[in-house]
Amino acid sequence: MAGILQQSLRCTLSGGRSLFSTLTRDATRSWTLPGIAASRRNASASSKIQVEMDSSTGIAVVTMQSPPVNSLSLDVLTEFCISLEKLEMDRGCQGVILTSSLPKIFSAGLDITEMYGKSPEHCAEFWKAVQELWLKLYGSSMVTVAAVNGSSPAGGCLMATSCDYRIMADNPKYGIGLNETQLGIVAPFWFRDTMVNTVGNRVAELSLQLGLLYSAPDALRVGLVDQLVPEQEVLRTAKDTMAKWLAIPDHARQITKSMMRKPTIDKLLSHREADIANFVSFITKDSIQKSLKMYLEGLKKRKN
Amino acid sequence: MAGILQQSLRCTLSGGRSLFSTLTRDATRSWTLPGIAASRRNASASSKIQVEMDSSTGIAVVTMQSPPVNSLSLDVLTEFCISLEKLEMDRGCQGVILTSSLPKIFSAGLDITEMYGKSPEHCAEFWKAVQELWLKLYGSSMVTVAAVNGSSPAGGCLMATSCDYRIMADNPKYGIGLNETQLGIVAPFWFRDTMVNTVGNRVAELSLQLGLLYSAPDALRVGLVDQLVPEQEVLRTAKDTMAKWLAIPDHARQITKSMMRKPTIDKLLSHREADIANFVSFITKDSIQKSLKMYLEGLKKRKN
Amino acid sequence: MAGILQQSLRCTLSGGRSLFSTLTRDATRSWTLPGIAASRRNASASSKIQVEMDSSTGIAVVTMQSPPVNSLSLDVLTEFCISLEKLEMDRGCQGVILTSSLPKIFSAGLDITEMYGKSPEHCAEFWKAVQELWLKLYGSSMVTVAAVNGSSPAGGCLMATSCDYRIMADNPKYGIGLNETQLGIVAPFWFRDTMVNTVGNRVAELSLQLGLLYSAPDALRVGLVDQLVPEQEVLRTAKDTMAKWLAIPDHARQITKSMMRKPTIDKLLSHREADIANFVSFITKDSIQKSLKMYLEGLKKRKN
Repeated sequence: MAGILQQSLRCTLSGGRSLFSTLTRDATRSWTLPGIAASRRNASASSKIQVEMDSSTGIAVVTMQSPPVNSLSLDVLTEFCISLEKLEMDRGCQGVILTSSLPKIFSAGLDITEMYGKSPEHCAEFWKAVQELWLKLYGSSMVTVAAVNGSSPAGGCLMATSCDYRIMADNPKYGIGLNETQLGIVAPFWFRDTMVNTVGNRVAELSLQLGLLYSAPDALRVGLVDQLVPEQEVLRTAKDTMAKWLAIPDHARQITKSMMRKPTIDKLLSHREADIANFVSFITKDSIQKSLKMYLEGLKKRKN
Repeated sequence: MAGILQQSLRCTLSGGRSLFSTLTRDATRSWTLPGIAASRRNASASSKIQVEMDSSTGIAVVTMQSPPVNSLSLDVLTEFCISLEKLEMDRGCQGVILTSSLPKIFSAGLDITEMYGKSPEHCAEFWKAVQELWLKLYGSSMVTVAAVNGSSPAGGCLMATSCDYRIMADNPKYGIGLNETQLGIVAPFWFRDTMVNTVGNRVAELSLQLGLLYSAPDALRVGLVDQLVPEQEVLRTAKDTMAKWLAIPDHARQITKSMMRKPTIDKLLSHREADIANFVSFITKDSIQKSLKMYLEGLKKRKN
Repeated sequence: MAGILQQSLRCTLSGGRSLFSTLTRDATRSWTLPGIAASRRNASASSKIQVEMDSSTGIAVVTMQSPPVNSLSLDVLTEFCISLEKLEMDRGCQGVILTSSLPKIFSAGLDITEMYGKSPEHCAEFWKAVQELWLKLYGSSMVTVAAVNGSSPAGGCLMATSCDYRIMADNPKYGIGLNETQLGIVAPFWFRDTMVNTVGNRVAELSLQLGLLYSAPDALRVGLVDQLVPEQEVLRTAKDTMAKWLAIPDHARQITKSMMRKPTIDKLLSHREADIANFVSFITKDSIQKSLKMYLEGLKKRKN
């Protein structure tokens, strides 16, 4: 019942200086009249991240729409971060639902082409953007609900587990998990921490070592997702769930969320540069580049 | 198999100097003859905490009897702490069963009137007493079993989860949980730690953010209580359970308990003053005082 | 996806200098031709630890064969450590299956006679060997699967929970758990950590305080083992399981395993001497020696 953190979390939770500090709140928000359901914004043809903000409910639906599989490229990560930052600064927005516009896929995770045959500088920039997205999502003061309407491996799983609640389509063909080792690469410590915080140490150890992708029913069983519903009801259920979360006094909920997540976030904040250096050193190794090449060639063949 | 802590825990577990250091063991104990079941003590009319010590079994039953809902006022907290301290110093007492004399309620938690319209000094004194009770209960070297024979929100849940084992009445109308956010206030880090230690990080995060009160069956399902029995069998089951715990060699059990709980206790001991300052600063805010006022008025209306 | 630890784990995981640094890889390995199933080595009559290495699969089966109950004496611990170290240095070996040649027992745990009536120096040497075995097993860069084909109390449970995966014979008469308190002794902090990492804090607290031995079905229920199979299928299932683990790219799996376990290992490495001193001081106490004497006399009577 004590106030562990008195400050508003809006400004401090995602920590450090903003990547996008020139944005101002009012300049970026197209207000809708209360009672009118939803108004699109940022819905330009080139946009990979669509944001629909409903001022009457305070809920924004953030939809990934980057065919074919919502890979998290540097462009997507940057647009994603900017969108989240805008919403975070928007006092009218209290909750974010994260979903996908593509059939069968929530997000395939990090874009391998950003790590293959690229300069160390590019890899560093890319990894910094991955960190930034996680910091913004895991540390968001808003309520975040993942409407997982398709498969969600690796970075896709990270995004889902960074939300406050996960609703997944009840389809055993959809998989979710941190399957990095299957590709010969390694999830970093903050992926691990997010996983441990969600499913506990033992399940995290098993699934990280084996690179397990859980089917939707198995994901529910181990606690990787919170709820399964028929595919066409995922988004509606996310909105219903969000309404319950928004009924909680916001300030108390924000402080509580920060109390739960701050230690995990602080760990990355205080090791951010070392984590980037580690990633670059690992990913630029010949043996790892060879693994990525084989993986990408395998993907191409499957397409043809 | 190693002795992590060689010292007897009697003196050190609850840490720091005693609030009640003038008490001496023999002066406070009314011995009963072995074989005679139970002898009341401290059973004066004004007492809010009744202690029945059975010398033949080494088990004390501590009963909260502060109508209407066993709120933890400063008086109750102080009497509670003194009772626990006496029992801790009583070599004949090895186990404490915590229960309620009131129908339908174990404890409603902290007394809101101690935080509403009070001076910062009073709030600080009150919070220090809350800390002290938790330190004594969570760090007790005795076996502690909660006989949860009614609802147990907020501070009531804290007391139950501070015990070694929880038996709850199998009644879906009874709720247990840290529902602070529902009232617009925030459970402090050591409430969180106690919850995480009991149900794990994910369930703790969900229930703290949403201020969830679990029905007895749900509480069993998530591990917030260990066992459900029919209401009239709660106390008997607690005594049977206690007998099994007391069959374990006491010294080894005490050291093991300390090994499990000492890190959590040390965290509060080393941040005690800061935690009090945080609480006072939070609870005396206008917005929080307004929330408490509305809550208290709601309670009054319900009574009338 | 970042490389947290770039170094090969082969050399660093078990930390510190090797106890057996004169061993060299090629000198200790009797190579078998690929395709030929298994070749025994170290299979001298006096050996308590049998190692069968199958070069065609990269899997070694390490069998405890120290009647009557595979107690971990100083001799057994030393031979065990040497065997593990040889396998760790053998590039052809990627996985270790740990099992017992004795009926009904996996391992009864630490040999009490090494702690009863012995000099402090002997106790210290013994405890150092226990630490060393745990460091080698919990920190092994190889995949480790426990084929628990019998009861596995105390130190036996520690060995099983130090492996990556546990398959137990589906026999409710077999028990597994850290039952130290039942004997009046205390599992040290790294036994606790291994248990917490496997079953979570609450189950660990309960089972350590009460010294619980879980029947095989209960062990599965609380997550102390991963799988139950009929007794005659334990070893075969372990080999099938191992094959799946070995299909994971080895380098990524090793780094991931280290990321999960290094913090726990580092805790012992940085408190190793203090832990030995604690153990010696505890175990040489008159009261503890008396408990051990009674326990040993009880064992003798049962035999006669």
